[in-house]
Amino acid sequence: MDPQTLKEMLERVREGTLSPDAAVKELAALPYEDLGFAKIDHHRALRRGFPETVFGGGKTPEQIVAIVERISGRGQRVLVTRTDPDVHAQVLAVRPEARYHAAARCITVETAPAATLAGRVAVTAAGTSDLPVAEEAAVTAAFHGAEVDRFYDVGVAGLHRLLDRAEAIRKADVVVVVAGMEGALPSVVAGLVDAPVVAVPTSVGYGASFHGLAALLAMLNSCASGVGVVNIDNGFGAAHLACLILRSRRS
Amino acid sequence: MDPQTLKEMLERVREGTLSPDAAVKELAALPYEDLGFAKIDHHRALRRGFPETVFGGGKTPEQIVAIVERISGRGQRVLVTRTDPDVHAQVLAVRPEARYHAAARCITVETAPAATLAGRVAVTAAGTSDLPVAEEAAVTAAFHGAEVDRFYDVGVAGLHRLLDRAEAIRKADVVVVVAGMEGALPSVVAGLVDAPVVAVPTSVGYGASFHGLAALLAMLNSCASGVGVVNIDNGFGAAHLACLILRSRRS
Amino acid sequence: MDPQTLKEMLERVREGTLSPDAAVKELAALPYEDLGFAKIDHHRALRRGFPETVFGGGKTPEQIVAIVERISGRGQRVLVTRTDPDVHAQVLAVRPEARYHAAARCITVETAPAATLAGRVAVTAAGTSDLPVAEEAAVTAAFHGAEVDRFYDVGVAGLHRLLDRAEAIRKADVVVVVAGMEGALPSVVAGLVDAPVVAVPTSVGYGASFHGLAALLAMLNSCASGVGVVNIDNGFGAAHLACLILRSRRS
Amino acid sequence: MDPQTLKEMLERVREGTLSPDAAVKELAALPYEDLGFAKIDHHRALRRGFPETVFGGGKTPEQIVAIVERISGRGQRVLVTRTDPDVHAQVLAVRPEARYHAAARCITVETAPAATLAGRVAVTAAGTSDLPVAEEAAVTAAFHGAEVDRFYDVGVAGLHRLLDRAEAIRKADVVVVVAGMEGALPSVVAGLVDAPVVAVPTSVGYGASFHGLAALLAMLNSCASGVGVVNIDNGFGAAHLACLILRSRRS
Amino acid sequence: MDPQTLKEMLERVREGTLSPDAAVKELAALPYEDLGFAKIDHHRALRRGFPETVFGGGKTPEQIVAIVERISGRGQRVLVTRTDPDVHAQVLAVRPEARYHAAARCITVETAPAATLAGRVAVTAAGTSDLPVAEEAAVTAAFHGAEVDRFYDVGVAGLHRLLDRAEAIRKADVVVVVAGMEGALPSVVAGLVDAPVVAVPTSVGYGASFHGLAALLAMLNSCASGVGVVNIDNGFGAAHLACLILRSRRS
Amino acid sequence: MDPQTLKEMLERVREGTLSPDAAVKELAALPYEDLGFAKIDHHRALRRGFPETVFGGGKTPEQIVAIVERISGRGQRVLVTRTDPDVHAQVLAVRPEARYHAAARCITVETAPAATLAGRVAVTAAGTSDLPVAEEAAVTAAFHGAEVDRFYDVGVAGLHRLLDRAEAIRKADVVVVVAGMEGALPSVVAGLVDAPVVAVPTSVGYGASFHGLAALLAMLNSCASGVGVVNIDNGFGAAHLACLILRSRRS
Amino acid sequence: MDPQTLKEMLERVREGTLSPDAAVKELAALPYEDLGFAKIDHHRALRRGFPETVFGGGKTPEQIVAIVERISGRGQRVLVTRTDPDVHAQVLAVRPEARYHAAARCITVETAPAATLAGRVAVTAAGTSDLPVAEEAAVTAAFHGAEVDRFYDVGVAGLHRLLDRAEAIRKADVVVVVAGMEGALPSVVAGLVDAPVVAVPTSVGYGASFHGLAALLAMLNSCASGVGVVNIDNGFGAAHLACLILRSRRS
Amino acid sequence: MDPQTLKEMLERVREGTLSPDAAVKELAALPYEDLGFAKIDHHRALRRGFPETVFGGGKTPEQIVAIVERISGRGQRVLVTRTDPDVHAQVLAVRPEARYHAAARCITVETAPAATLAGRVAVTAAGTSDLPVAEEAAVTAAFHGAEVDRFYDVGVAGLHRLLDRAEAIRKADVVVVVAGMEGALPSVVAGLVDAPVVAVPTSVGYGASFHGLAALLAMLNSCASGVGVVNIDNGFGAAHLACLILRSRRS
Repeated sequence: MDPQTLKEMLERVREGTLSPDAAVKELAALPYEDLGFAKIDHHRALRRGFPETVFGGGKTPEQIVAIVERISGRGQRVLVTRTDPDVHAQVLAVRPEARYHAAARCITVETAPAATLAGRVAVTAAGTSDLPVAEEAAVTAAFHGAEVDRFYDVGVAGLHRLLDRAEAIRKADVVVVVAGMEGALPSVVAGLVDAPVVAVPTSVGYGASFHGLAALLAMLNSCASGVGVVNIDNGFGAAHLACLILRSRRS
Repeated sequence: MDPQTLKEMLERVREGTLSPDAAVKELAALPYEDLGFAKIDHHRALRRGFPETVFGGGKTPEQIVAIVERISGRGQRVLVTRTDPDVHAQVLAVRPEARYHAAARCITVETAPAATLAGRVAVTAAGTSDLPVAEEAAVTAAFHGAEVDRFYDVGVAGLHRLLDRAEAIRKADVVVVVAGMEGALPSVVAGLVDAPVVAVPTSVGYGASFHGLAALLAMLNSCASGVGVVNIDNGFGAAHLACLILRSRRS
Repeated sequence: MDPQTLKEMLERVREGTLSPDAAVKELAALPYEDLGFAKIDHHRALRRGFPETVFGGGKTPEQIVAIVERISGRGQRVLVTRTDPDVHAQVLAVRPEARYHAAARCITVETAPAATLAGRVAVTAAGTSDLPVAEEAAVTAAFHGAEVDRFYDVGVAGLHRLLDRAEAIRKADVVVVVAGMEGALPSVVAGLVDAPVVAVPTSVGYGASFHGLAALLAMLNSCASGVGVVNIDNGFGAAHLACLILRSRRS
Repeated sequence: MDPQTLKEMLERVREGTLSPDAAVKELAALPYEDLGFAKIDHHRALRRGFPETVFGGGKTPEQIVAIVERISGRGQRVLVTRTDPDVHAQVLAVRPEARYHAAARCITVETAPAATLAGRVAVTAAGTSDLPVAEEAAVTAAFHGAEVDRFYDVGVAGLHRLLDRAEAIRKADVVVVVAGMEGALPSVVAGLVDAPVVAVPTSVGYGASFHGLAALLAMLNSCASGVGVVNIDNGFGAAHLACLILRSRRS
Repeated sequence: MDPQTLKEMLERVREGTLSPDAAVKELAALPYEDLGFAKIDHHRALRRGFPETVFGGGKTPEQIVAIVERISGRGQRVLVTRTDPDVHAQVLAVRPEARYHAAARCITVETAPAATLAGRVAVTAAGTSDLPVAEEAAVTAAFHGAEVDRFYDVGVAGLHRLLDRAEAIRKADVVVVVAGMEGALPSVVAGLVDAPVVAVPTSVGYGASFHGLAALLAMLNSCASGVGVVNIDNGFGAAHLACLILRSRRS
Repeated sequence: MDPQTLKEMLERVREGTLSPDAAVKELAALPYEDLGFAKIDHHRALRRGFPETVFGGGKTPEQIVAIVERISGRGQRVLVTRTDPDVHAQVLAVRPEARYHAAARCITVETAPAATLAGRVAVTAAGTSDLPVAEEAAVTAAFHGAEVDRFYDVGVAGLHRLLDRAEAIRKADVVVVVAGMEGALPSVVAGLVDAPVVAVPTSVGYGASFHGLAALLAMLNSCASGVGVVNIDNGFGAAHLACLILRSRRS
Repeated sequence: MDPQTLKEMLERVREGTLSPDAAVKELAALPYEDLGFAKIDHHRALRRGFPETVFGGGKTPEQIVAIVERISGRGQRVLVTRTDPDVHAQVLAVRPEARYHAAARCITVETAPAATLAGRVAVTAAGTSDLPVAEEAAVTAAFHGAEVDRFYDVGVAGLHRLLDRAEAIRKADVVVVVAGMEGALPSVVAGLVDAPVVAVPTSVGYGASFHGLAALLAMLNSCASGVGVVNIDNGFGAAHLACLILRSRRS
Repeated sequence: MDPQTLKEMLERVREGTLSPDAAVKELAALPYEDLGFAKIDHHRALRRGFPETVFGGGKTPEQIVAIVERISGRGQRVLVTRTDPDVHAQVLAVRPEARYHAAARCITVETAPAATLAGRVAVTAAGTSDLPVAEEAAVTAAFHGAEVDRFYDVGVAGLHRLLDRAEAIRKADVVVVVAGMEGALPSVVAGLVDAPVVAVPTSVGYGASFHGLAALLAMLNSCASGVGVVNIDNGFGAAHLACLILRSRRS
């Protein structure tokens, strides 16, 4: 209920076509998002430009198929993360346009044209083992409408490979940096670019990497300013944050 | 050395006024940032709009005074974080314009007018004990040229106080959320706004807060997307990231 | 042996029908719970209103069937937690009234009518992945005789869904709050209700959730007072504590 | 604004003495707690029976004095935790009725008679070093209006001392159990009583107690059901939860 | 080489039947344990009363069979821990006297009569899930020659069961106490007996037990003196230490 | 009340000089340790040979003086650990025989001749920084009546120093091994001796020693069997366990 | 491009056969390693003596076969670590000279004669379970061209076995020490030799070894100087470091 | 006793000037290092080229003065680490040649000319706060006789500063890399040089650096091979290892 609707209701009270008792009851029953002055959920409308996402981890193929059907049935685009080819096969049976992104372990269903975001996201990854997380970020950002450039295998132990790409990386408006092991790449990249850096630690490594803890701590302690960190292996979350940053550019 | 300068040098080689040997020597001696094709440090020029910052923690008053003098002597503005009134008194002796921000434990020296950033940063804090970190963020963002709105004492245990401010917080282009103890505030705020959220865990708490670890883990595991986390108590880093996001809006 | 029985024994000593030697021997052989002044186990009788529970985790189907048979053979109701349909099938062979609660992964055998507890338990859960733990709590509380209301998918990132249910949640005498990831829900709920809150962290999450540690620490550090925390994924324990609170209302 | 007030406002709209525009504006300006249908803060009224509490840790004496003056100036009783005799001396200067509880490190200011809670809280502590936390719990519970019984120095290494008090402890409606070191006492007490147990780990211990972590983990893993755990050293929180449980008995 | 042998060698030097050069060579080639004054390995002889033990975890059945054959081929008794019925079947093929202890997951091969140790070991366990570890301890201690009494299912939440056995437990010369979850049992037992207590934390539990860490920390922080702790699930090590204590009684 | 006393009481009942009612009352009032059949505290009598110990850490000098006076006033010997010369000076004022052991930071008051234990305790320490803990163990063991041999500065990095003392260490019936840093000494010593080893990790070290955690974990994972571990820096506890082992030799 | 090439290019500019514009373009396009003055990657040439290594963990057999083919197709030798016989079988199909080192879980393909390193590497291991890691180190060092001596099963609990080999170990120029459980071996070995020690903690152990953390911390806290530590189970890394040390001997 | 001396003793036995009994006694009394075939301590002689070092942390000024006097009284050079100017003043009173290295917090007493090591050690440090640890390493290496080059303030966030020094760093035979915060520098440096890298994490940082844990884990997980790690803040240990590597070059 926007202020106009509220005013119309009050006009009906004044006109006597709505009793005060009925108006009290009606007001009490309204969801918050319909109250012009509360607008708790008003942002949902603004966000609608972003496609819906299903975290596939821990869900059965049946559950995923059902959710995808429901969302795409409303004409909305949908992204499924942390999934596999078997699930894709089942989704394909009901949504022939479903596409599987093997490296990213994601399914996308494009039931509508994507909105576009003004800006470029660079997805930078240290090693080849970090690719699943990097691709999850890249596919997500592209699905959200961003232009995405990939810079892979630019780990800090072979600095020249990173420096060779530095000019290209600097073209991005936001840089997502994915790294496991010692997690040094975001610190180095943040020193090379002027854009905000979203750092994603990965669970790549063994022994004292403690499933990504080493990389996570390194990124939180970065000697370079301008780095925001997301959860271990959270490629989706990094891309989502990057796209929020891009979108804030249009407002 | 930009491409033009390089070309001029090569012209002198062609003209015979510079010998190839001398040219080799000159090229080898150049710092990277002067080579048009390397530009490793080219971004420093772009960044000059941001004031220099001195991390005061662990430095002696003498060291801080010396650094401040050197920077402001170049006509540059400077921010000192994690400092105290005694250091301010000593800085005041050499820079009368130095100002102490007690709640933020920061000194600012305004030797030049600040550049302005197009955009608003909301600094939101859960409890009164989180204020030093929140103020460090607010003072930093203001010093970088952002418009800053403060929303303090809006912890999740008294949700109405936060909801009362929700409309105002939504006006921000970036929201810095500061919280200790259980670190729940960024998750709740990220659900209420559309802007990127920079989350700062604080070491406020006792017992099983483990000096901010509880809040840090909570923020990394936020069920709301669009949250980037910085180090515990790192108000400066959060504001710096927020201002990078704002600045990327102008490009 | 209650004081009366003891006195009667001593009367027999006085009468000479029981020798002092025999009395010493008899006293020494008594279990503690029969001594009026020791009563170490007296509370077991008081507790009999609660059904017996078998923790199914790590037990073989044969062990579970045997225990269930023994308990229900005494005419007592029994609850098996952390079990699966295969075990249920085997229990069914000997106890046809055994019922499987799939979402809760529990078996209940109702060999007797449940005692009722005066009061309502609200079971509140943040996300759909938290449901197994939430259902374990709900099934347990119902089996103990409480009235149970379920409030699921009310995570803090979509606050309006929680606020829409706030009035209903406030009707509960005890609120069990189940959440994984950042574990913020108990803090928010405890700020909305006046009843005691029993918080259950779940192992839902990945990366820096460290199998529920993040949620656990968040709950222990809740900025809202009135929250008691149980072990990670311990839905049964939370419901048991909630029912103890309800029962204390009758005394 | 309760429903009656809302209805009266709507009556004025119907009567034409209040224009719809003015009504819209008035409704929008209302705090949530005044809206009969929102009632987000309605519970605050219900809670008013509990005195206000100031966490003294990290606050300056001046801040504490100011807060105490403001609260007691409204005629409300106030409790200050984690404080010391110096702060008490300063509070005494403005509130002569302020009383210092040395063992609990608390100040109470009784500007009004306490409400009473129907029920007894037993505060049980393992060792003499746990007394500050136990006393914080006991003073808090008494200040909230509960009847409090203290059972100190009943650690599990001298079981007979605990068993000697078991009968008396069983008289309580809620048992707060305070223990450091190995944190075993709540498990043993929960096996002896039928009431809910609120367990408080303390930072008492050294070496591998890791400032209370050992006791905290022990309590979370209690083999006895019916135990809710609060943060390390959080005597206040335990008592607050215990009193919420007692109060729920009256409803 | 004991001093006597050394002296005899030197006599031969004096007699001229052994040249100094040959003696130097002979001395240099001696293993340490043969030098009367070094005796680094002299203790191995003393220890021979204890059977050899093979830690089966991580070894292939073939490796275990080979080791068992070699040891029992020398006429020595051998114990295999952390093994399973399949390995037993293969051992049985070469050593028909091999016996499998299912609850302890151990194989024993009795190729010689056991030495006996003067003394009793009580093996005490909190819950039924702790039995594999407790049985490993019990089988080990019996195999080493001790008299072993088992006291199982005497967890601290049902104190009367433990107290009923207290007299019997006190008869032991060493008490091995096995417990998972909160690990409280050793503290309680050490308060009831005068014998040394060897505490074994088990990985039984879930969530915040962190695979036995909670129990381990509890045992290290025991408020009762006289408790020595071994590694998580190390039933063998506990029994070995207990038997060393018993054997020291004979010296 | 031992069985004989109980029987005498029952004789009086038979003789009519004690009424059954009075006997019931008398039996109910008895502490557990006086009941021949309960004997929960019977072990205290057996333990009386060990002096009482006061943990000085965290106690005020006044508290320590009061406790020492009370204990020694009963004619009992007393040991105060974790104390300092100032406390000793105050104790000296009331107990002139109080002696301060500077290296051990202990006070002993010998109001009675010590009982002797049959056996030797070797106290072995890796580095000079471990001496306070080692001396606490040595002073405690001597005060309990054991013969104590000290072997200090025998860390594993200079193996010959340890091997030079190996013969002498082997004479001990129990070996207490104290080590910080990498905590390797107990593993090496346990390989050299046949006696039980009580290992004490110390908080000596820096950085990744994490206040003794490194040494503690090393000792729990010792590749040598026969090692029981106590808490970090717990020299007293180690000596107490060692003396329990010695005493069990006499029974 | 070395300085000579650069000079030649500049000569062509002087001669007029290369225009300044073309020279600018050519210089800008050069990879860093070709610029005599930058030489960022110049070290790669120096390193060429070391064979390339493929970390097999987490790669598919197809990926490994492809990488091996590419490298050995260039005539270079290649080492695959963390692999298995199935992968070897597939590699064998394309490179018949591929050899599988079962204990080390490595494949080597010798397409060229190995360079030799002047020096010996001793690989020392505590227990038989540490062999996979030790063999990975030994195979790597041999493949790099070092002479390798193996000293296995020389754990500190049986010191004589280690001392018997001490003379032989001292012959090495670098000692790689591999140990799990308590990780004491590097400290003892570093005290026996004068060469640098590279310590490799292994994940061998259980319970409180926490997958190698105990051994890692022990090695970092070694009381013996001259120990450098690599990641848990990182046999390859240890050998690589050892060979770098050897190679630095030739320069 | 070298083989020659042993042979001479045996000659005397043959000649009858030494009785076998006396020879047995003499052999038994010999320290291990004098036995040609044992040589356990033979390496000490080889090591004598390195000066003795006193870890000043936790020692009183009196203890340090006494140790320094004793060592330098034998004509040996000595290094004291982790000390301060006050201690230096006291040492100066007895050894006027004692020199204080303020940045390194070290004292050196040069009672003899230093041996020289053939080779250069580069000490590289990320930030100015890392200087105390870096200087401890530099002073130690110089005192051991190495040529030392310092490269400070070359953190990875300003990569050009490091790259500008890369050529110079490559001249070193061993590189010590000191870094706190995210600990990325060793990974980057190891990618730039061919020499072995000794990495020293420092406790510089705050919040989630956890006193150097973040940097430590990063270094252990370095994606660059050829890195050996020492304990947090252990500048001395790093330099000692570096010098062992240098010295092995001479053999």
